[in-house]
Amino acid sequence: MQRGWLLQGNRRLDAWPLQDRACAYGDGLFETVRINREPVLLGYHLDRMMAGCRRLHLSLERSDLESVLSQALHGVRDAVLKIMVSRGSGGRGYAVTPDMTPSVAVMLSELPQWPLANYRDGIAIRVCDTRLAIAPALAGIKHLNRLEQVLGRMEAAPEIYPEMLMEANDGRLIEGTCSNLFMVCDGTLVTPDLSDCGVAGTLRRWLLQAAETEIGAVKETSLTRSDLLASSECFVCNSVFGIWPIRQCGNQEWAVGKITRKLQDCTAPWFSVP
Amino acid sequence: MQRGWLLQGNRRLDAWPLQDRACAYGDGLFETVRINREPVLLGYHLDRMMAGCRRLHLSLERSDLESVLSQALHGVRDAVLKIMVSRGSGGRGYAVTPDMTPSVAVMLSELPQWPLANYRDGIAIRVCDTRLAIAPALAGIKHLNRLEQVLGRMEAAPEIYPEMLMEANDGRLIEGTCSNLFMVCDGTLVTPDLSDCGVAGTLRRWLLQAAETEIGAVKETSLTRSDLLASSECFVCNSVFGIWPIRQCGNQEWAVGKITRKLQDCTAPWFSVP
Repeated sequence: MQRGWLLQGNRRLDAWPLQDRACAYGDGLFETVRINREPVLLGYHLDRMMAGCRRLHLSLERSDLESVLSQALHGVRDAVLKIMVSRGSGGRGYAVTPDMTPSVAVMLSELPQWPLANYRDGIAIRVCDTRLAIAPALAGIKHLNRLEQVLGRMEAAPEIYPEMLMEANDGRLIEGTCSNLFMVCDGTLVTPDLSDCGVAGTLRRWLLQAAETEIGAVKETSLTRSDLLASSECFVCNSVFGIWPIRQCGNQEWAVGKITRKLQDCTAPWFSVP
Repeated sequence: MQRGWLLQGNRRLDAWPLQDRACAYGDGLFETVRINREPVLLGYHLDRMMAGCRRLHLSLERSDLESVLSQALHGVRDAVLKIMVSRGSGGRGYAVTPDMTPSVAVMLSELPQWPLANYRDGIAIRVCDTRLAIAPALAGIKHLNRLEQVLGRMEAAPEIYPEMLMEANDGRLIEGTCSNLFMVCDGTLVTPDLSDCGVAGTLRRWLLQAAETEIGAVKETSLTRSDLLASSECFVCNSVFGIWPIRQCGNQEWAVGKITRKLQDCTAPWFSVP
């Protein structure tokens, strides 16, 4: 981390109080934003964070977030920004009391250097044994309860599998540990429906809209591992690395497809892919 | 909170580092222990925490926990002790790296004053609309991903419902937001099976063993709201407040039953119930 701080109301802190509810219960939300001269898709990130606040009944104004960010991002041109919101400190037990003041943490880190081959040739991917619980009340938002992703990611080294896929308990394929999944099935671009679990990514949202214009129909639907293996092209995406084609899963191999390449091209300026 | 501190390796801190994984992902565990001259059921709490460490692949020695606690508890005679373990700080993203040093937080709080009527007459209870996701990989252990409990507890004021029950997604009744549930069905003491979700409480563990001696058979099984309403007696329990009979749920009312009273008597010394 290059820089980071925490604001609780008007107080500026350097660390989370011992009794902070983000630590105690994962009672909060986060966003990870690529800064490439400008914060990429920032409006979508704030939309999702505010949707998360409504879902968790966490009272925070969008304008408060915006003012924290305008200070934090002054002069920053190339970084990864993490924003965290916690319901605040205090209380013994799960009950929420009216005196809790939400806190906002802002952290700036250097952009990781991913191999160019991830973009050009694609990545090998594996499906995790760890499965996502079906939890509609928490689906879509980017809350801080992320043990499933931690356990999933631990199953293999990032050097071998830069990303791994996760299925829901009922066997549907949902997403990557930190990305969303798209595939081309029978000529149509599709992505898993996230009503029951998964994080609705900001780049996913952008792609769902842009793909209508760029490549015709795109569909959110129920998908399985068999659909992936039968797909003509497939990729994972998130708002920090962009789009990585999938080149291999088990015995199946893919060349990078035309639709994937077209969407990479559309988004290349955000992710500085050479 | 009366006192609290955090140990990361040999470093003593007063707050969680901004990048701590307990805060970022709920990547850790906790225990809440009643101190009544002695820590009550401490061995069981440490057993569960170590089981959680194994499940999360978190490397912490039981002896390290014990030595932190022996310092923290010196001279403490009456309090609630919270122990938290985090995988430690650092890393960008979910991947765990070998350099992460687990940290242990210890917090001492004053014992809440619950109404005597909760013990004597029992409590009114409601079933939450928020449901527990079926997540066998995380079932039983007391990890830090607790948004379901937070959302469940927010559905009603603790003054009206001192505890609330939670069902799994499939409709089975599992536990209270911060307690376990027991009921007497057809003369047999039963408690929900927790293989798919729920926290396996330390007092629940003690009761499962003691009940064999004190009152004959006790059974972990699949139960629903109908079983609760048809039960002849029922109670919730945890290792901090002890045993609270349930006196009312919806239109159903119960007098405090003989088995409940007997188990309250057996455990009364731990919970200083007058």
